[in-house]
Amino acid sequence: MTMHDVFAYIDAQADDYVAKLQTLCRQPTIAAQNLGMAETANMVRGMVADLGAEVQLLMTEGYPVVYGELPGAGTKSLLLYDHYDAQPPEPLALWTHDPFGAEIADGRIWARGVADNKGNLVARLCAADAWLKVRGQLPLTLKFLFEGEEEIGSPSLPAFAEAYHDLYRADGCIWEAGYKDRQGRLQITMGCKGICYVELRAHGANSDLHSANAAIVPSPVWRLVWALQTLKTPDERILIDGFYDRVRSPSQRDLELAAAWDFQAEAHKHDLGIDHYLRHAEGTELKADLLFQPTCNIAGIEAGYTGPGSKTILPNQAMAKIDFRLVPDQSHQRVLQLLREHLDRYGFSDIEVIDLNGEDPARTDPRDPVVTAVAEAARSVYAQPPQLLPTMSGTGPMYPLCQRWGMPAVGAGVGNAQSHTHAPNENIKVADYIEGIKHMAMIFQKFATGDGTQ
Amino acid sequence: MTMHDVFAYIDAQADDYVAKLQTLCRQPTIAAQNLGMAETANMVRGMVADLGAEVQLLMTEGYPVVYGELPGAGTKSLLLYDHYDAQPPEPLALWTHDPFGAEIADGRIWARGVADNKGNLVARLCAADAWLKVRGQLPLTLKFLFEGEEEIGSPSLPAFAEAYHDLYRADGCIWEAGYKDRQGRLQITMGCKGICYVELRAHGANSDLHSANAAIVPSPVWRLVWALQTLKTPDERILIDGFYDRVRSPSQRDLELAAAWDFQAEAHKHDLGIDHYLRHAEGTELKADLLFQPTCNIAGIEAGYTGPGSKTILPNQAMAKIDFRLVPDQSHQRVLQLLREHLDRYGFSDIEVIDLNGEDPARTDPRDPVVTAVAEAARSVYAQPPQLLPTMSGTGPMYPLCQRWGMPAVGAGVGNAQSHTHAPNENIKVADYIEGIKHMAMIFQKFATGDGTQ
Repeated sequence: MTMHDVFAYIDAQADDYVAKLQTLCRQPTIAAQNLGMAETANMVRGMVADLGAEVQLLMTEGYPVVYGELPGAGTKSLLLYDHYDAQPPEPLALWTHDPFGAEIADGRIWARGVADNKGNLVARLCAADAWLKVRGQLPLTLKFLFEGEEEIGSPSLPAFAEAYHDLYRADGCIWEAGYKDRQGRLQITMGCKGICYVELRAHGANSDLHSANAAIVPSPVWRLVWALQTLKTPDERILIDGFYDRVRSPSQRDLELAAAWDFQAEAHKHDLGIDHYLRHAEGTELKADLLFQPTCNIAGIEAGYTGPGSKTILPNQAMAKIDFRLVPDQSHQRVLQLLREHLDRYGFSDIEVIDLNGEDPARTDPRDPVVTAVAEAARSVYAQPPQLLPTMSGTGPMYPLCQRWGMPAVGAGVGNAQSHTHAPNENIKVADYIEGIKHMAMIFQKFATGDGTQ
Repeated sequence: MTMHDVFAYIDAQADDYVAKLQTLCRQPTIAAQNLGMAETANMVRGMVADLGAEVQLLMTEGYPVVYGELPGAGTKSLLLYDHYDAQPPEPLALWTHDPFGAEIADGRIWARGVADNKGNLVARLCAADAWLKVRGQLPLTLKFLFEGEEEIGSPSLPAFAEAYHDLYRADGCIWEAGYKDRQGRLQITMGCKGICYVELRAHGANSDLHSANAAIVPSPVWRLVWALQTLKTPDERILIDGFYDRVRSPSQRDLELAAAWDFQAEAHKHDLGIDHYLRHAEGTELKADLLFQPTCNIAGIEAGYTGPGSKTILPNQAMAKIDFRLVPDQSHQRVLQLLREHLDRYGFSDIEVIDLNGEDPARTDPRDPVVTAVAEAARSVYAQPPQLLPTMSGTGPMYPLCQRWGMPAVGAGVGNAQSHTHAPNENIKVADYIEGIKHMAMIFQKFATGDGTQ
């Protein structure tokens, strides 16, 4: 069936669809700082209700889930998973546009959360809107599940899924995010890494001291530095005993997909302003690092005086935030336990480990019908064929929400290679957003009518 | 000659002398933040002028020096060196009193800078005031030299000393600070450590990135951690090649003074809330560490996200502030050079070293007449005999101001063992302040009439 009618409607409504997204982006929604959460949940509930859907705020132990259903023709159902929260906007000084202004400049919409993940959330609502307005009925049942804790590790989602998986269960799930690569090719992802995010804290005297005392009084900053350096070597080997034990080797299909992936390493390095990758990796090795290797990253560190000039103190506390990205079949709880054991074994039992959040990794079978539908829709909507990746290098609650209940999930979205997610100057291109709405409308069509072969 | 008349006057003026100090403490003077510098210099100039002294603001490349002279009887002259600047008050949340309120509570005056060094500065002016009011003339010529950059390493003072040493030259110098120990015994110090204060900076990509990139993109935070851990072992051995080459062994007299020093290690640990010293040192070894060992302290470190909760970024810069305390005959410039060479040799030529300030160590001969005068004055004023220490564990510009021109310098002051210098809740005891004024008045007497034997 041709989609020209729906696509023409999307083009005609483009200004209105962009305005909807701007409205949502102008509402700050920072889960880590408990900023604007209820306001945003209510705003999103209103947007889903405007489609004519049954919608409710489902309470969790944290921020609520906005859940809505739109019944359609046929027997197929599709879950659309997004999140209405965003990362903190800091450091503010590095933004060239107001992070909550949603200004349009240079063909892009600039805002915290516009790529990750408000742009996708609104695009999916607009795709449903266009279908309904043009055809009167969807070709399949849509289920919208929009959580508010993705950027803080979805701590309430496992319990939510336990309680509500019968409600939101569907034949497939479209995951929250996706990006075009540098060449403008849509990336379709079939899994995500897990995460173990901890804060390490070292403690010293009962107050900061004059640094003359450093000759005799233990320093929590040095304790932290010495503890950190036991975790990873400069050649990127993570030294925690047992850390790699459950790392599953990539399958033949994984390796084929990685080999077929045109990563554009030189352009990527140029974009980031770096002159080499870790361990000077290139080609297949580089792609394998990104897709299949776990990480140990220091996301933040702080102690003592960090202002201008010099202040001669011996700080009395030190803190580091560390995120481990995990790959199948590692698990958050296991890595947490191994880390504690490691620190104790190396004489750092004085260093406190605070479990800030964790998620297990997930994978979808590349042959699943939902993957086929997303890929075929992309081939028919976009000028260039998509790139299929066995996994994202990022993390989401795909395991507790989908994989645990046997639901396949696949990611695609409206971001681009310079969307600066989690960083200053986050943006999406207006053209990608409109094209993404069409892609989603086409996915409804393909998944409703597809036969599941690829 | 009895000093009862002068002491009685000091007691009668106690409220006024305390009020003078409160006024100075209520004026913030943070050199590192360029806060209140001109206001304080003018206020101090006015206080010196009120004594009837010739006073001038001598310009430097940084903040001005307040310099005054009060001629007296006899041929002896004494230089009083203090500083009108103070450390930053941060972290503000840990203060139980307003750092610029100079409140009196529990018999103490609470204020940033009150112990280091405004209390001593005003006490010395009050001692001169009392002498003049009671006797009409001082027994020796006083020279006041109050700089404004001590807490940022006195960067302009070497050039100032080069230009003005003929002006301020005297037979001895009373150094800026001093403290009673836990038992209430005055500590008299005959030297100071040097310092080399640097900022290390590591650079990564051109912006913070989503931490999924940590699988392939170099981290400046890890670079910094790895570089730091090459500087010092957990058993406190500094690993920079050549760092210890010029460390002079303590003299027999140094060791005797250290042995005679009743350090009260258990009480000190209790005060600080720690259960052991570095390397579990005790007794003579502990005192030798504090007096005679150089240090490598991390005064501050910062990178990435340090707010509440979790933010998953790969930071694109990392910074550490390091202060090395130096002992004779190490030098600032030499350590700076050795550090750069060390980082280069260990593969960290990408890490930037910024020289924030430096000072060379200094020592005064324990047999010098100015030491004798300060010690004898203490024996006659204080209830308990003083403790003589071969050096402070802290730093000041004693080398460029005094030692380079052959002037002996000795430190004594109005602080106490819990003065919290450089930390929140800085304070002095009101009684120590009044007693310190008397001690200083007695030093004028002893130094004017002393024969230089001890």
